[in-house]
Amino acid sequence: MYKPQIIAFDADDTLWVNETIFTDTQEKCKDLLSLYVSPEMMEEKLYETERRNLRHFGYGIKGFMLSMIETAIELSEAKISASEIQEIIHLGKEMLAHPVHLLDHVEETVRTLSEEFDLMIITKGDLFDQESKIARSGMADFFKYIEIVSEKDKSSYRQVMMRNRIDIQKLLMVGNSLKSDILPICELGGMAVHIPFHTTWVLEQIATHHLEHIRYDSLSHIGQLPKYLELSFLK
Amino acid sequence: MYKPQIIAFDADDTLWVNETIFTDTQEKCKDLLSLYVSPEMMEEKLYETERRNLRHFGYGIKGFMLSMIETAIELSEAKISASEIQEIIHLGKEMLAHPVHLLDHVEETVRTLSEEFDLMIITKGDLFDQESKIARSGMADFFKYIEIVSEKDKSSYRQVMMRNRIDIQKLLMVGNSLKSDILPICELGGMAVHIPFHTTWVLEQIATHHLEHIRYDSLSHIGQLPKYLELSFLK
Repeated sequence: MYKPQIIAFDADDTLWVNETIFTDTQEKCKDLLSLYVSPEMMEEKLYETERRNLRHFGYGIKGFMLSMIETAIELSEAKISASEIQEIIHLGKEMLAHPVHLLDHVEETVRTLSEEFDLMIITKGDLFDQESKIARSGMADFFKYIEIVSEKDKSSYRQVMMRNRIDIQKLLMVGNSLKSDILPICELGGMAVHIPFHTTWVLEQIATHHLEHIRYDSLSHIGQLPKYLELSFLK
Repeated sequence: MYKPQIIAFDADDTLWVNETIFTDTQEKCKDLLSLYVSPEMMEEKLYETERRNLRHFGYGIKGFMLSMIETAIELSEAKISASEIQEIIHLGKEMLAHPVHLLDHVEETVRTLSEEFDLMIITKGDLFDQESKIARSGMADFFKYIEIVSEKDKSSYRQVMMRNRIDIQKLLMVGNSLKSDILPICELGGMAVHIPFHTTWVLEQIATHHLEHIRYDSLSHIGQLPKYLELSFLK
């Protein structure tokens, strides 16, 4: 196989920490509501609400805040106080203002690869929040393409490639989500490297049998990427 | 002046109704809270909350929902019940599912102009919600470029033009907001036509002295655009 020309990176949990900000907030929310409901019940119901609200809200923190509020109202049988709801909004605002923590090896890897490849960020979620994180990461200048999409599936990847006149066979995608980063890219004929993050949101989980027909490689951290690229491809 | 090659349209309140969906919901919210607070106070405070939250939430319905909830909690001195807050969330979900009502003359004007010009939608706000409205409008196929941005200012317009390799001097922008659609485009050297909508969100209002140095034309409705283009430019 020939070397890719473009390396595309997922952002959340590939370049920087994201999912743990959600799980930490969820824990605080469980504490806040412990008078009304057990932590297990809260967790289960929150996933259910998020799943149901996805078609209204899409991905992102604002939708998560609204889902937390709805779940709290429902589980407390509307006994939760307005002050407690204000506290949930406050937790959400803290998430939005959370510093962007780059994962280990990201900075030097991106810097190194940018000398040889055209780099892309392709991330899904809330436009305003994702732009803010990309800006605050300090990494924007290394990326030739920055794409924020509302969903990562074959159709949206195809659109991104068309818009940027990119031949997907020359692209290698790097990401932590098998469902969003690896599967659709491989199905479209691109290359993909999976770098797992230690935790995966329930709505990103995928049964392994969906992956049987595709080929992709896995690395344990992003710092291995330059060596992998050097060894895996013909010049 | 030579005819533009690209006609760019703002979407909300230029192609379809938007602001009235917000004002209608605001009225319902005032009714809902009438036990706690006067409508005037609610209106004033809501604008204040929206303005303050803009840097956290950006534009869009989800942020508006959160601002309504915050305002209601604050003005009721946290006396508002969880059921009433659930009702506000319900009002917000109704906004998100609201049918897209094209403004008069939009359909035939866009259809006609698409035969001669490359058309663009450039709209700001929530990615997920804007994409959903564009899809539901049934008009997407007439537009060569669809751009959803988090803010409409010189910097974001410049980025859109660069990304699409467009010379802004060949572009004419059509929109209802002097602040977001007309001023930045004129300052960048593009052409602009203002088509006022009957109501303008407070945060889109602009003092006229900001507009003294730019030239733009005004039409009373979008149906006048083909004739305007025919008469105003050299072939």
